[in-house]
Amino acid sequence: MSGAMKDPVQIRFSGSGGQGLITAGVILAEAAMLDGRNVVQTQTYGPEARLGSSRAEVIISKGTIAYPEVTVPDVLLCLSQEAARKYAMKVGPETVVMLDSTNIGEDIPASGRVLRLAITDAAVKAGGRVVANTVSLALMNAIVPVVSRGALSRAIEERVPAKFRELNRRAQEAGEALAREVAAAV
Amino acid sequence: MSGAMKDPVQIRFSGSGGQGLITAGVILAEAAMLDGRNVVQTQTYGPEARLGSSRAEVIISKGTIAYPEVTVPDVLLCLSQEAARKYAMKVGPETVVMLDSTNIGEDIPASGRVLRLAITDAAVKAGGRVVANTVSLALMNAIVPVVSRGALSRAIEERVPAKFRELNRRAQEAGEALAREVAAAV
Repeated sequence: MSGAMKDPVQIRFSGSGGQGLITAGVILAEAAMLDGRNVVQTQTYGPEARLGSSRAEVIISKGTIAYPEVTVPDVLLCLSQEAARKYAMKVGPETVVMLDSTNIGEDIPASGRVLRLAITDAAVKAGGRVVANTVSLALMNAIVPVVSRGALSRAIEERVPAKFRELNRRAQEAGEALAREVAAAV
Repeated sequence: MSGAMKDPVQIRFSGSGGQGLITAGVILAEAAMLDGRNVVQTQTYGPEARLGSSRAEVIISKGTIAYPEVTVPDVLLCLSQEAARKYAMKVGPETVVMLDSTNIGEDIPASGRVLRLAITDAAVKAGGRVVANTVSLALMNAIVPVVSRGALSRAIEERVPAKFRELNRRAQEAGEALAREVAAAV
């Protein structure tokens, strides 16, 4: 998962409502913008959203972005079992698929380069499940660096209310620690 | 501007960074979802975003949304002079164009059905320019009702931190009051 980053790079975050994935998408887009990239960030809500599922997509490029929707994701994050059922097989062989093993059973099939990680557990340890989104962002960006670390930190700081900054800093560190565990295990 | 709402309806919010337009886009999308609509909500960041401009788009439909980008907006909001220069002539004859006269000079040309309204002034009176986005949402939805009032109120309440709820309620009322002034003047 090292080497030159694809351009454009397509990222899909999925989970249930309340997991902060729209905020995660906005933060990642703002970080990429701070890096001087062109970005399209999209939320799509359908009838399924009313049942509690949530999806945010980010496309990042040095050039113009011709088509604003993710076709084949380079990175897929699934934070809920329902999201994994819906998206985890709709990937390419090179897609990095990050499944939150706190919420998603091992019996749920996934394709691509599958990583099963206890994301929500790490968030709870860092201070609350509400920061599963920040843990995910830091984890993803440590495994597949789509934006600079400095830009991501700044975008988190700018988007998060002041009183949650310390919590989000801890969440960011927890995500990076989880990434190091993955690297050590591979 | 009464009668049956177009479907899909295409809305473009534009202004400068820090005016909360991305949050406005997310809130409007969540309100439409509460109404049972399909929604695509997009932020596009380009090199111009680094210079401080911001754009959020929302497309709302009872059916499937084939193309996720706004082609000709049904509603355009411009909160900054730069945004007005960029977008206010890129509309159709039926587009409702809302220009914030607090920030945009009368010499800036605009096409469509042009309304020049002191949005930021109204926000300041309601408690702070930080709620120009909520004033805009309530104003727009009173003039061109794209979502139900109840859904908009609930989406604002759910998205805004608890301690800013009262401020945002005042901003919502200020937007609706501004819309009544427009109706009285027409």
